[in-house]
Amino acid sequence: MVLDKPKVVQLEDVKPQNVENAVDTTIRVLISGEEAPTYAMRVFEMGPRGYIPAHSHPWEHGIFVLEGKLRIKVENEVFELEPNTAIYIPPNKVHEYWNIGGGRVRFICTIPNRPTAPLQT
Amino acid sequence: MVLDKPKVVQLEDVKPQNVENAVDTTIRVLISGEEAPTYAMRVFEMGPRGYIPAHSHPWEHGIFVLEGKLRIKVENEVFELEPNTAIYIPPNKVHEYWNIGGGRVRFICTIPNRPTAPLQT
Repeated sequence: MVLDKPKVVQLEDVKPQNVENAVDTTIRVLISGEEAPTYAMRVFEMGPRGYIPAHSHPWEHGIFVLEGKLRIKVENEVFELEPNTAIYIPPNKVHEYWNIGGGRVRFICTIPNRPTAPLQT
Repeated sequence: MVLDKPKVVQLEDVKPQNVENAVDTTIRVLISGEEAPTYAMRVFEMGPRGYIPAHSHPWEHGIFVLEGKLRIKVENEVFELEPNTAIYIPPNKVHEYWNIGGGRVRFICTIPNRPTAPLQT
């Protein structure tokens, strides 16, 4: 149910959940798609072996790197991102993530509540 | 025009723009509402005297504090936020911001491209 009141949440107070099909990677949902009308805000954390395999979906991501060094492949392009860097990933683009820094990676990943493009299979 | 390719942007590469009606406060648009289909990602920076006066609008905010100490009043509730803390502010709630840490405040503020609630005046 969409919240009619403000919600304050500290990252460390949210229990991390393992990300399915990924390696050494968790997600914390700070603001969920049930709580907010348009999009959700989550924080991903990848350990030293962190890897999220290639996948795609008919909605975009807005990502902001908080900590560590993250490689993201989007279709055939590869980006190496450090803190204070954002990346926009359009809908239906195949994307894949690696922690390449040896330490912890943390990034904010925002996601719309509804698809924003026709499904491409 | 909505981007069909990924966009990578470093915070420091975006020229800060003064926020109208605010004190000692700038905005950097990392992913704009023209570039992305659903919502925009911006970073606000408030200097030591930073203040954003009370205002409201028929869309929500998802905020994540990166640096400094930020007081936000939402209607009659006051929150003091430190880094790694998120706040969801629902549509049509009067909100007001103060930098209370003496140093620099930086926070991510996401915003939908379209109103998500009827305008309340």
